[in-house]
Amino acid sequence: MPRVLILSKNAPEYRRLVEAAGLPGLEILAATASPSEALGLRDDFDVIFGEPVLIREVLARQRGLRWVQATFAGVEPLLDPSLRRDYLLTNARGVFGGLMAEYVFGYLLQHERRMFDRKRAQQELRWDASLTGILRGKTIGLLGVGSIGASLARTARHFGMTVLGYTRASESCPEVDNYYHGDSLLEFAGRLDYLVNTLPNTKETRHLVDASLLARLPAHAVVVNVGRGSTVDESALVDALQNGRLAAAVLDVFEQEPLPPEHAFWTTPNLLMTFHTSAPSLPGDLAGLFIENYHRYTSGLTPNYAVNFENGY
Amino acid sequence: MPRVLILSKNAPEYRRLVEAAGLPGLEILAATASPSEALGLRDDFDVIFGEPVLIREVLARQRGLRWVQATFAGVEPLLDPSLRRDYLLTNARGVFGGLMAEYVFGYLLQHERRMFDRKRAQQELRWDASLTGILRGKTIGLLGVGSIGASLARTARHFGMTVLGYTRASESCPEVDNYYHGDSLLEFAGRLDYLVNTLPNTKETRHLVDASLLARLPAHAVVVNVGRGSTVDESALVDALQNGRLAAAVLDVFEQEPLPPEHAFWTTPNLLMTFHTSAPSLPGDLAGLFIENYHRYTSGLTPNYAVNFENGY
Repeated sequence: MPRVLILSKNAPEYRRLVEAAGLPGLEILAATASPSEALGLRDDFDVIFGEPVLIREVLARQRGLRWVQATFAGVEPLLDPSLRRDYLLTNARGVFGGLMAEYVFGYLLQHERRMFDRKRAQQELRWDASLTGILRGKTIGLLGVGSIGASLARTARHFGMTVLGYTRASESCPEVDNYYHGDSLLEFAGRLDYLVNTLPNTKETRHLVDASLLARLPAHAVVVNVGRGSTVDESALVDALQNGRLAAAVLDVFEQEPLPPEHAFWTTPNLLMTFHTSAPSLPGDLAGLFIENYHRYTSGLTPNYAVNFENGY
Repeated sequence: MPRVLILSKNAPEYRRLVEAAGLPGLEILAATASPSEALGLRDDFDVIFGEPVLIREVLARQRGLRWVQATFAGVEPLLDPSLRRDYLLTNARGVFGGLMAEYVFGYLLQHERRMFDRKRAQQELRWDASLTGILRGKTIGLLGVGSIGASLARTARHFGMTVLGYTRASESCPEVDNYYHGDSLLEFAGRLDYLVNTLPNTKETRHLVDASLLARLPAHAVVVNVGRGSTVDESALVDALQNGRLAAAVLDVFEQEPLPPEHAFWTTPNLLMTFHTSAPSLPGDLAGLFIENYHRYTSGLTPNYAVNFENGY
């Protein structure tokens, strides 16, 4: 009888969705958005399902803890070496790819079609029949080709783009036309119209998008970051945009979130930002993932998407 | 030995592309953007490749004319009943679908992601982490499922949407989940999140999107017109938007183009317009279409995409 804590800002909806699945042996002992409320209740949960930053607060006290299912892909709050690691941590994967593809290709198409320019023409009552661009035939480079990168690759191919992938070693996505690894990063960059980062936050990915990489991108290229803020050297990016060495950037993630009001990004030319909202954690998707993993857990199988505490993903 | 006139604003590029194909027996006698220059040259062209509005000017004089390949899908200038119809008219099809899909889904994703709102938040240095919408799970209705509609259906399915099609009779596109015909138009409208018109300009399509259809669309729905302006009752659309009975409209085509500066569309709330630029006639695409049809023509086959002068498409 797994004793489950749901610890999430969407706790009531998760409880409803999980209960509706009629899982065998499931006992939801609490569903709350408040770590202190959870701590006050009891300390004998076997399983926790929820947001990493909330789970961190109750981690030490749950002596019998065996499995944590995070509702996010990023589980940094649980990776601190001072925290316990004697349980199985699984993160959310496979559910964000389609949402990320909607975000990324929405902004790519916005760039090609110059939607903001077109709106300005409309406001000025100006019939602007100048041609705009298209994605077909352009080249997209994916920094990281995990489940999100693979989803982006599929949509890129759907639109007739060439897809290049930069990975540590894997070459498993059939929609990637050519792979690059190791020190071929700058060669990869030189061939791109669009660079999209989907990498997690690790020691190896920190500032991978730096001044030298940005210098090798064609001046008409666009950088999109839907991975982690730490992968991009923020001041190098501001410099490239301010000096016209890059056409545009679309950023959903930042080294510090929320982004402080004094940060240069807010007012950097041709920089569009969103607010860590590119792939919302939709309750139906995440509950489905928990339910599938619960079946695996109670059948003695290892739940999917285990996180390696050392690698961070 | 077909004697060919290229009559297009892109005449030099078309000449280069067509000549590079080394077509057997081809004789390009002239390539110009000027009907009067073409008329001054000679009057014995068998084949004309170019823009309908230019070709109209030289049509009467070409006594031996046998085939006209238009670079556009819309060939209204050649359909006037006062003009000759003793030649084969083929229009451009099959080349615009992918470009239209980029346009339509670019604007659909813009709507879901509230890109203009996000940019305003950025300008106000406001971290706006409110959720935005997604296409997955939404329903798109296609008014007309020809080659462009079929291309939109494929992209809609790629993004996990439900696809409904309203056609006169055809049900040939496998990506359409459900078809509607005849007097089921309002039933069709009532089920949509997005209505996209791709219909040509004919008697039957005139003002098909009228006040009664707009009234049946859900208030959160968005209307996109990439077909012909005549399909939409423009004042009914303005009325629906001004009164909040429709979330938004995206229009690329209008009853009168260029749109007159006094037209209400320019300033109607939640109306975004572009300027008949949704699917540019790209010289490489059109030359390829001409080359393929030239092979058919010289082999005694009928070129593809013949236009019926009565139906208008």
